[in-house]
Amino acid sequence: MATIKDIASKLGISVSAVSKSMNGASDISEELRQLVLDTAVEMGYSTKRSRKKENRKLALFIENMEYESTGDFGYDIVLGFKQSAFKGNWDVDVIPVTPTFQLENKYDTYLLSQGYSGAFIVGFALQDDWMKQFVSTTMPTVLFDNSIKHNPNTSYIGTDNYEGIDEAIDHLYKLGHTKIAFLNGSLHSMVSEQRQEAFLQGMKNHGLKVDKKLLAYGYYVADSARYHVPAFLENGATAIMCGNDLIASGVVEECKHKGLRVPEDISVIGFDDIPIASEMTPGLTTVNQNRSELGKGGYMILTSLISGIAISKSLLRPKLIVRGSTASVK
Amino acid sequence: MATIKDIASKLGISVSAVSKSMNGASDISEELRQLVLDTAVEMGYSTKRSRKKENRKLALFIENMEYESTGDFGYDIVLGFKQSAFKGNWDVDVIPVTPTFQLENKYDTYLLSQGYSGAFIVGFALQDDWMKQFVSTTMPTVLFDNSIKHNPNTSYIGTDNYEGIDEAIDHLYKLGHTKIAFLNGSLHSMVSEQRQEAFLQGMKNHGLKVDKKLLAYGYYVADSARYHVPAFLENGATAIMCGNDLIASGVVEECKHKGLRVPEDISVIGFDDIPIASEMTPGLTTVNQNRSELGKGGYMILTSLISGIAISKSLLRPKLIVRGSTASVK
Repeated sequence: MATIKDIASKLGISVSAVSKSMNGASDISEELRQLVLDTAVEMGYSTKRSRKKENRKLALFIENMEYESTGDFGYDIVLGFKQSAFKGNWDVDVIPVTPTFQLENKYDTYLLSQGYSGAFIVGFALQDDWMKQFVSTTMPTVLFDNSIKHNPNTSYIGTDNYEGIDEAIDHLYKLGHTKIAFLNGSLHSMVSEQRQEAFLQGMKNHGLKVDKKLLAYGYYVADSARYHVPAFLENGATAIMCGNDLIASGVVEECKHKGLRVPEDISVIGFDDIPIASEMTPGLTTVNQNRSELGKGGYMILTSLISGIAISKSLLRPKLIVRGSTASVK
Repeated sequence: MATIKDIASKLGISVSAVSKSMNGASDISEELRQLVLDTAVEMGYSTKRSRKKENRKLALFIENMEYESTGDFGYDIVLGFKQSAFKGNWDVDVIPVTPTFQLENKYDTYLLSQGYSGAFIVGFALQDDWMKQFVSTTMPTVLFDNSIKHNPNTSYIGTDNYEGIDEAIDHLYKLGHTKIAFLNGSLHSMVSEQRQEAFLQGMKNHGLKVDKKLLAYGYYVADSARYHVPAFLENGATAIMCGNDLIASGVVEECKHKGLRVPEDISVIGFDDIPIASEMTPGLTTVNQNRSELGKGGYMILTSLISGIAISKSLLRPKLIVRGSTASVK
């Protein structure tokens, strides 16, 4: 576990500056204080700081998502949530769950018995047992990329898929592409549905025709590509938009396998901006989801629910990151 | 201006309890402290409390909306924003603006020259000059019921029109109505467009057919009713959903004028839940927008933008309030 000395050494400042920052001393700038607190959480520093209230505890339940290493999709979501909670004087327990765990524990009862004031739900699937329980939960509950209708104790946070896909299409449009294919992720996922609708709307916004032969659902894995890319190419696609970066990495490989050059012969765009996007050759043009902000925003919305502000939905801005996988149409 | 004594007397507690609450003494419950702070702002109490930072000032620009009396639509929005800001140690200036004011002052320059860190924008119209400037503003800016695309310094907060209209249609559907008319507000407003789409989607969700003769845009005033209600009635409507409560009040009057009884012969639903909704005879069934939460949420999102979390959109839960203007179809 990190000590104050470790933090000071990592940041290259004195131990007393770290200590003062932690205690909110008035001669420390706000920027430095925030940096020290962020770093402390990132390094696993923990202390029983004096708290006015007992039981200031939040739960972060996570499933179907890696989060323990820096390259994992969930890493920055979890870290951002913990960093914000630390500043707000809340303890956070990160609890990996399984379908069995959900069947064995009633959601509300579990939170109450463990003294949690609310929870952040990450990576759950529509068929999970707790998803049914969220419809009537009385506990403040924020869900990443899942939405519960009509229950004011729940809230949905995610990235604005509509704006993200629209920016991607706009980029391809300006490069002269008109025959744009879309290889989406899995059916029966809220996010896939939104990205599908966003693609149709984005094409319409740019006066482009959607060819049904250039539309397909796959799964959120690289292997999806080889089932759909051949048909896209036969039907004249000059660019392929993908449901996420993993799919896009498979699409790039499949195109190369078919003897095509990316981006000279075909442009490819991903979604998420996970580490492989910048590590691939060529680098992948993609729609960035800011996962640290998703975690911080999740905390903020959760504390709003706890204080009685019934926000049902919050979306973060996506950001198109242009790298080497897109170019002007031939 | 209210004193600590006034606040104590209004709440029926001692002056020392008010004073302790203001100073965050540890023997005061969090609930009482919140209540004291809320009441202090409501009564116009103001003090130069010690602040670590200079220039913690936010602007609330308001146009086209009454807000000075308790019955006004904007009153609770402004109050909620000020109450949350007070707790966060920010000063708020409420600044009514005109189109001329916008032409005479550049938005970013005005904020910077006056030392504001960000602004909440309430009641602006699409054609306002500042709406164009928001597209590229570098100042954290939250807009009530208006959305700016692609600028991460801006954010939109409003009520979830889709969920609200869907709940209203669900209520009518369960009362046996199938011929439901929709008298919307003004064309060329983001909110009207959302409510229109929400109505079409809500009807579809309930397996109900939309009759184009039962759809009309008017204006957000009671007088809209007499231009459209006669045709709705001729075409067999048994229920009329309205774009807001003012329109609904006109619809009820027009139906009475035509010799029909509300709700026995025709059901009417409004949107907003402004004070007239509960004062009318019969009381108006309507979709409640929680204006205090809209103000508090606006503050919360604004401070998120200031701290670098680019939330683009936040929606509050609507709530259907059932009163006397709806009943089972005959």
